Amino acid sequence: MTTAEPSRAAPSRAQALARDETDLLRGFHERFVVAGDGLIYLDGNSLGRLPRDTAARVAEVVWKQWGERLIRGWSEGWMELPQTLGDRLGAALLGAAPGQVVVADSTTVCFYKLAAAAIGARPRRTEIITDVDNFPTDRYVLESLAAEHGLTIRWIEADPHAGPEPAQVAALLSERTALVTFSQVNYRSAFILDTAAITALAHDAGALALWDLSHSAGAIPVTLDDDGVDLAVGCTYKYLNGGPGAPAFLYVADRHQDRLRQPIWGWLGRRDPFEMAPGYLPGEGIAAMLSGTPPVLGLTAAQVGIDLVIEAGIDVIRAKSIALTEYCIELIDEWLAPLGCGVGSPRDGAERGSHVALVHPDARALTRRLIDAGVVPDFRTPDVIRLGLSPLTTRFADVYDGLGRLAEMLG
Amino acid sequence: MTTAEPSRAAPSRAQALARDETDLLRGFHERFVVAGDGLIYLDGNSLGRLPRDTAARVAEVVWKQWGERLIRGWSEGWMELPQTLGDRLGAALLGAAPGQVVVADSTTVCFYKLAAAAIGARPRRTEIITDVDNFPTDRYVLESLAAEHGLTIRWIEADPHAGPEPAQVAALLSERTALVTFSQVNYRSAFILDTAAITALAHDAGALALWDLSHSAGAIPVTLDDDGVDLAVGCTYKYLNGGPGAPAFLYVADRHQDRLRQPIWGWLGRRDPFEMAPGYLPGEGIAAMLSGTPPVLGLTAAQVGIDLVIEAGIDVIRAKSIALTEYCIELIDEWLAPLGCGVGSPRDGAERGSHVALVHPDARALTRRLIDAGVVPDFRTPDVIRLGLSPLTTRFADVYDGLGRLAEMLG
Repeated sequence: MTTAEPSRAAPSRAQALARDETDLLRGFHERFVVAGDGLIYLDGNSLGRLPRDTAARVAEVVWKQWGERLIRGWSEGWMELPQTLGDRLGAALLGAAPGQVVVADSTTVCFYKLAAAAIGARPRRTEIITDVDNFPTDRYVLESLAAEHGLTIRWIEADPHAGPEPAQVAALLSERTALVTFSQVNYRSAFILDTAAITALAHDAGALALWDLSHSAGAIPVTLDDDGVDLAVGCTYKYLNGGPGAPAFLYVADRHQDRLRQPIWGWLGRRDPFEMAPGYLPGEGIAAMLSGTPPVLGLTAAQVGIDLVIEAGIDVIRAKSIALTEYCIELIDEWLAPLGCGVGSPRDGAERGSHVALVHPDARALTRRLIDAGVVPDFRTPDVIRLGLSPLTTRFADVYDGLGRLAEMLG
Repeated sequence: MTTAEPSRAAPSRAQALARDETDLLRGFHERFVVAGDGLIYLDGNSLGRLPRDTAARVAEVVWKQWGERLIRGWSEGWMELPQTLGDRLGAALLGAAPGQVVVADSTTVCFYKLAAAAIGARPRRTEIITDVDNFPTDRYVLESLAAEHGLTIRWIEADPHAGPEPAQVAALLSERTALVTFSQVNYRSAFILDTAAITALAHDAGALALWDLSHSAGAIPVTLDDDGVDLAVGCTYKYLNGGPGAPAFLYVADRHQDRLRQPIWGWLGRRDPFEMAPGYLPGEGIAAMLSGTPPVLGLTAAQVGIDLVIEAGIDVIRAKSIALTEYCIELIDEWLAPLGCGVGSPRDGAERGSHVALVHPDARALTRRLIDAGVVPDFRTPDVIRLGLSPLTTRFADVYDGLGRLAEMLG
């Protein structure tokens, strides 16, 4: 360095370890399974680690409930699991009063139901607003519904290292807009959209707002009721550690529950399912958003992960998330920027979720080499190595070691 | 008895035990968990018993795959689970050549996708044919799609103790018919519909046939390819013992896979899901029927149950099923008919699935009393005590004891 400015102290592993020592969440690391293979896991935003209690809890439900109670389990709690777990998740992590959240189906199916419901509630409107960098499954579902209903999707092309701003949404909103929908935290850049502002703009235009919380839930405080959100969905296998393909959740604000109709009219969504009577009558409240039989094993595992996040507390999680991602960006700047890497995420912690997009033209090949070298991030097209830093399980030393290995690879 | 005919030997418990002794499937009873509480479980057609291996297998996937392999599990088999399990199930139990079955989503969601796909494939046709006694979730989904697309449902009112006959279907078929859909085995009466004949009639009219196999799979031999079936769905938690809310399966005949489009365009159904590219392109073959991320824990449990049925062999299962249901009807005739009970299922074994509908005006209250007395059937409106006899786990002695207790109650 030729500058006269005093350089910051070079990052050291001791420093990283010291931060782990004083981490308020340090006790949670051992509540998760960490195999003894020295793996550096930087992908908890794609699939969260396994809580130590999950297998035992699933086994208990399998042996004691399914094995012994059999069909009686349905009247001993299984039937209400989508609601009871939804209420718990909603109150602690989504800012949602009871009776507005259920856990069931895949994120894709939940998103389909709610997007279709919103479109149905605005029958004379012809446009949907979203962004080209929204998560693929959301985009594909919107394409399907647009084709089916003859609607036009207005695509926002936002900064790929950030995401849509309210002004970009405002520019497209009109009396033609039925639905405005985005991921609250972009899956690639980690940019946090201004949920309250965009929702208010949608309402001003008479449209509904549907938010995908897959990269928010368990990572940042979500305030659905306060933000005036109409509809939301999200997944439980990322920061909520619910397990591979765990059931998703959906939220419908109280004020819409009487009028919105989702299209998959299954027996679980009907008033008095066991009457099996002729003619579909939507169940009361959020129950009308259900369709098929609740997936009890998946819900059981999801509950363990969700409860751990609730126990830790979302504010402590958020504070650590900002510290971890900030540290990650510091190391990229210090070690990797000189080696051709860039930061594809917001530098302002308030605008950033819990992962960091590291940009490099050879991102795909580098990700493969990192995985072979025992460091697991993931690759996102076209040029992003995505570093997921899950506050309950990722340590500062993991960030140090993982990025150190990448620096060696590129050095 | 005043008749001169020699009466049959009175049923005896020893006789029932003797039949259990020589049962070719007797070894399978202990492959399942049977709690030591003496429960007589006659509801395996609603929720199959827990296989002994399930908890260990789920725990193995949880610890060894999720816990240790983490995100890498997706490229080590998880991603293909819907297809690999679908192929295995299809070949052994559904008469389906590979590449036509996937396991994923709930039965309701699978039924919705395929019914919508069929309607989309017959855009100028305006009618759907089904029966008033079809399983509720199927009826409700059809109502939803009919409302959405402005279609008329032509309801067959069949004999409630049997089910729709080909002639009744023929009477409603016309160039207006888009879709003909029934449960292959009626959930209440257990009547087996003539799948090949009804499918052929539908084809003659240019319509598509969609079959719900929820009460068939694992209970009777199913021959989808030979019967010329277009589409089918079914559940894995009844005779396939997959666990509460286990994922369902769907079948799309090869010849339709290029043209039929299901409405829930998720990332798993897209060509090259991990490319996450703009624009939905349906995946190749049956993959295009998928939507969201596969539910790995549910699929794992389902596989254990399915494999047990495959190991036992569907022909042996069917033979025992006929014997068990026949025995059940004999006991009803002998003990319960004089006490006001009737048989609401076909008396011809070839027309009957693996449960028996026992008809009594107080069926609802009696079911409750039976459950309190340690005998678990289920109640189906308006007047049916449904006795599910699952060949891998139900013994002749269970039938004897269960109906004996009902006779005492009524006597």
